[in-house]
Amino acid sequence: MGDIGQTQEAARLTVPNGIPPPNFELPLPDSDNPDIITENLLKLVEQTPNPRLRFIYKLLIQHIHAFVKETKLSPDEWIAAVEFMTRVVHSGTPPRSRMRNLGSVLGVTALIRFLNNPVMEGATETSLLGPYYTDDAEDMEVGDSIASEGKGEYMYVEGRVLTTAGEPIPDATIVTWEADEHGLYDLQYSDRTHPDCRGRFRTMKDGSFGYRAIVPQPYPLESGGPIGELLMSQGRHNMRPIHLHVIVEAPGYHQLVTALYPDHCIYLRSDPVFGVKKSLVVKLEQVDDDAEARKRGFPKGGSFKLLKYDIVLLTEEQWALVNEQV
Amino acid sequence: MGDIGQTQEAARLTVPNGIPPPNFELPLPDSDNPDIITENLLKLVEQTPNPRLRFIYKLLIQHIHAFVKETKLSPDEWIAAVEFMTRVVHSGTPPRSRMRNLGSVLGVTALIRFLNNPVMEGATETSLLGPYYTDDAEDMEVGDSIASEGKGEYMYVEGRVLTTAGEPIPDATIVTWEADEHGLYDLQYSDRTHPDCRGRFRTMKDGSFGYRAIVPQPYPLESGGPIGELLMSQGRHNMRPIHLHVIVEAPGYHQLVTALYPDHCIYLRSDPVFGVKKSLVVKLEQVDDDAEARKRGFPKGGSFKLLKYDIVLLTEEQWALVNEQV
Repeated sequence: MGDIGQTQEAARLTVPNGIPPPNFELPLPDSDNPDIITENLLKLVEQTPNPRLRFIYKLLIQHIHAFVKETKLSPDEWIAAVEFMTRVVHSGTPPRSRMRNLGSVLGVTALIRFLNNPVMEGATETSLLGPYYTDDAEDMEVGDSIASEGKGEYMYVEGRVLTTAGEPIPDATIVTWEADEHGLYDLQYSDRTHPDCRGRFRTMKDGSFGYRAIVPQPYPLESGGPIGELLMSQGRHNMRPIHLHVIVEAPGYHQLVTALYPDHCIYLRSDPVFGVKKSLVVKLEQVDDDAEARKRGFPKGGSFKLLKYDIVLLTEEQWALVNEQV
Repeated sequence: MGDIGQTQEAARLTVPNGIPPPNFELPLPDSDNPDIITENLLKLVEQTPNPRLRFIYKLLIQHIHAFVKETKLSPDEWIAAVEFMTRVVHSGTPPRSRMRNLGSVLGVTALIRFLNNPVMEGATETSLLGPYYTDDAEDMEVGDSIASEGKGEYMYVEGRVLTTAGEPIPDATIVTWEADEHGLYDLQYSDRTHPDCRGRFRTMKDGSFGYRAIVPQPYPLESGGPIGELLMSQGRHNMRPIHLHVIVEAPGYHQLVTALYPDHCIYLRSDPVFGVKKSLVVKLEQVDDDAEARKRGFPKGGSFKLLKYDIVLLTEEQWALVNEQV
């Protein structure tokens, strides 16, 4: 007979958790009535001490079981799902998890943002941070270019940062970044030595900001891994629509993480990760004026696109108030 | 400007998948109406070429989105869920995935078995295979003991393997295994040199079988890892009720993977993985008869428990017929 002290890893992980069997009666599951499994499990999780978790667990179980019953999921399909989830996790590289990416293409990330970031009339809405934010964007002055020459078609970005009352917010910090004309962020180049297509600005006394950039291009999400395969199997393209990332913060105001989506992009309405919101869609103005282009600092002059957008921040108090109401 | 040919791993994985944007109009999501995300995603997955997958994806999305909305899941809760799932996968050791274990404690595995293994009146029902099956059980003769002496209280197992018409099935193979009096399988002892508490038998001409064993004890599922933490947070014990595993096969008959659950176990009605079915619950008979114990081959005589259970197999034709009707 083996020595209990010499058990394997598996046995050491398997010790009783000390919770007694429930003190209420549960019917024995009967194959004629699979609902007993669902009902028994729901009664068992009624014992969850944390009330919020109890609520979440019950809804989770109800939906998972309903899904399995409505699809009459087969054992093979279940194994395929398990293997898919396992591949999703294993394909991830720290610190960002691929499981979150899966949530993004299933609309979960966007839905959670929508539900948890209630709109206050007139305030700029949020959008996804995305995986290409860095903290090394360089400090720049009004009119500077975030993109090195040759990264794409000229675009000038200008606007003001305002309160909901329309008052300017001076000295607000704007961090902005974008994909280049190849749909690539600087991070995706192995020879990156310094930040490109990203910069950090401060607003003037009148709340205004303005900088040179390039018209970003759409870029694909992962196409080779399990999430790429999922999109393919669903007949969905993997192109994120054209967008310019912006984070705006100012003391006393709630940080805004958002992005602006030019309306000419063919992928605008079918963003695979649902980052687009109606209020964040912008029209790029075509400016065919060589003198104006040179005045704005574009070295080759010619024409450029103009993106005008005013950003409205909530104070921390306003933000708290809006969130309480939800 | 970076060379496109020199992109990093990330960029190489991100190429357009070649699917065009949809040729139908989708409304732009509006924060006042998060349902647009759900509706747009459902319209997008309508493009799924495989009809079964299309059906599954649509129900999956409906249930996940309903769950997120009904719980008003917060970003922190979503991140906690993602991290939990990631830990579940990473805590697994090949070839068995912990993701399947998660499905087991959420009742999914049992539910799928219930839905996909329809009952035919009179046939023995299925139960979970569990993680402790091995293919090295030794061939034994009627009356042999699957357990070495001292592994637990004596138990004699006997019955017949029959057709649904009550005819004996001779030469059927029975593979059986169980946990010992410490609730441990032989696999869990690091000094295991040969199989113990497991054996392989063949039925006699009259379909009968009989062997010595011990009364198995309940055993805990994982308690240290994420699944153990889940059960703990739900106030659920992690003890599998007492059971004896049995796999029965005979040429022309559908393989039966099941287990028998003695009714005296305090965990019988709250099995954390929902393996118990009413028809698989058995009563152990107490036999206080030293002579009988010795006659049956128990070296120390005294008393023993008797487990009597007849097993009824479906022919492959019957099995196919029952499954077609579902």
